[in-house]
Amino acid sequence: MSILVTGGAGYIGSHTCLELLKAGYDVVVVDNLCNAKEESLKRVSHLAGREVAFRNVDIRNISELRKVFSAFSIDAVVHFAGLKAVGESTKVPMKYYDNNVNGTRCLLEVMNEFDVRHLVFSSSATVYGDPETVPVREDFPTGTPTNPYGRTKLVIEEMLKDLSASDERWNFSLLRYFNPVGAHESGIIGEDPNGIPNNLMPFIAQVAVGKREKLNVYGGDYPTEDGTGIRDYIHVVDLAEGHLAALKTHWNDTGVHTYNLGTGNGSSVLEMLSAFEVACGHSIPYEIVARRPGDIAECFADPSYANEKLGWTATRTIAEMTADTWKWQTANPEGYSE
Amino acid sequence: MSILVTGGAGYIGSHTCLELLKAGYDVVVVDNLCNAKEESLKRVSHLAGREVAFRNVDIRNISELRKVFSAFSIDAVVHFAGLKAVGESTKVPMKYYDNNVNGTRCLLEVMNEFDVRHLVFSSSATVYGDPETVPVREDFPTGTPTNPYGRTKLVIEEMLKDLSASDERWNFSLLRYFNPVGAHESGIIGEDPNGIPNNLMPFIAQVAVGKREKLNVYGGDYPTEDGTGIRDYIHVVDLAEGHLAALKTHWNDTGVHTYNLGTGNGSSVLEMLSAFEVACGHSIPYEIVARRPGDIAECFADPSYANEKLGWTATRTIAEMTADTWKWQTANPEGYSE
Repeated sequence: MSILVTGGAGYIGSHTCLELLKAGYDVVVVDNLCNAKEESLKRVSHLAGREVAFRNVDIRNISELRKVFSAFSIDAVVHFAGLKAVGESTKVPMKYYDNNVNGTRCLLEVMNEFDVRHLVFSSSATVYGDPETVPVREDFPTGTPTNPYGRTKLVIEEMLKDLSASDERWNFSLLRYFNPVGAHESGIIGEDPNGIPNNLMPFIAQVAVGKREKLNVYGGDYPTEDGTGIRDYIHVVDLAEGHLAALKTHWNDTGVHTYNLGTGNGSSVLEMLSAFEVACGHSIPYEIVARRPGDIAECFADPSYANEKLGWTATRTIAEMTADTWKWQTANPEGYSE
Repeated sequence: MSILVTGGAGYIGSHTCLELLKAGYDVVVVDNLCNAKEESLKRVSHLAGREVAFRNVDIRNISELRKVFSAFSIDAVVHFAGLKAVGESTKVPMKYYDNNVNGTRCLLEVMNEFDVRHLVFSSSATVYGDPETVPVREDFPTGTPTNPYGRTKLVIEEMLKDLSASDERWNFSLLRYFNPVGAHESGIIGEDPNGIPNNLMPFIAQVAVGKREKLNVYGGDYPTEDGTGIRDYIHVVDLAEGHLAALKTHWNDTGVHTYNLGTGNGSSVLEMLSAFEVACGHSIPYEIVARRPGDIAECFADPSYANEKLGWTATRTIAEMTADTWKWQTANPEGYSE
């Protein structure tokens, strides 16, 4: 089986490529490298002992994408390609509608031409908006995402549902990620954000390694036990395994299947900070500052449906998430840059 | 002032072009003619006594669109171009996401390049989904549109709001149409649907003129006075005048402004049928059949905000809507075809 992985050089993409290779799939990656480096895939190939085929292609470039489908006999697509910085999405929303929504539309057009109708899609818990209760189940109503990034994820979900309803040959898995963190246990691949990290863990890691002065904790007055926001952090290798589990259900199935990929456990910002201090062996300076607009108090998954239907469960602990992040960060203080 | 009208050869577009010309604007139309004929614009020019500049351009063709913006000094855009058949949208949803959402994205990209940031957008009351109460006000929550066509309208509204929030130079009027019917009082321009009409009035007109055997009335058991669905029918010339009124507010304004364009009066299917029988002078055969999935019982506007802010009110009666439709239909039984 050959799997096309869009955005495969990125953080979650590269970890998923590794799991796919280890499971015996052939892997073809397209990535425009706007937020990733080809080095990640070299390391994935090294870790797996097998090559990844890589093409520097933007999925909006339909003619280039056609060449990839012509050159390889693709059986299914795992679709990561997309922009993901919440703050940036409020500043340049059209870039997000173009890369994410229009990019997915172009991908589907070429898939259809080549009779490839299995797709695993990187969605996000952001589609729930501010959920009325936690844990969040897949049958909760999708809410109003609080930013353009989130809206593009919801639009894509709806587009895939409309397409599936119109043509029963398609098979879509919508994987709603909670908060991916950590790195491969080898410390050889991990998250390499451009510029100032948008997310908590890479930010903590850069403070811990001395690249940044202190952590800003956005909001200490949420209605939670310690006043900081609660999220469901999931180890990126657990997440990668979730993609594999979803893919295995594909071959004799059709329709749209939605899965929460989370642990089911909520952790506060301060809990994550403490866990990271244990992992790195020293204290990490932080300051509690104002809440960020659009942030919600608490969000964590009910992951039981993915367990029941896919036989998948996240098994890695917060201690492993922080230890693996620290291992990656110390071994690669400048990420994949030389 | 020069106004670019996308989809200007279509039903509402052509009536709006006429009002723009009469008000002294220069008009440039781009239309890919997928659901319209250039003949409509020839007749508009004839009625106005002034020429419309026409280019056969698909708005998704960015390089062709740039040529139009280079050739004319455009001050604002009235954006009708898009597909609108609810039933078709459930069968080929990607065509709708491409033409409507991606088409609008391409248009905005070129407008931005040419520093044109005034846009009047053809939205629809469908963005309210199934409203909890009637009349519907602009501050009602947008609901879940019941079909892909409606979803594309809602996605475009959200995209425009995101763009405006990111860059305050833009100015958008979102015009939420209720149910446009009728034709110009001359009978020279009107609605010329491809194939079987999707909407009530052109269908009634084709039965009345003998082109179709009978009218199917979808659902006689709605919780309404006579059991048939209630809608807010608005004369297309009133609607065209609403575009003009919105445009007049543009020059010193920015942000996103949303207006219901409706009469505020609900009429049932059987009431419209009776009114049409009066207009055409004979009875029209009909049959009550099962409800259509996705149809709602009742929807009509509270148009007071458009009145207050734009000084606009729909003034034409149901009798005028049916009489003008009949005049157009009898004078042009085959629409714009020779």
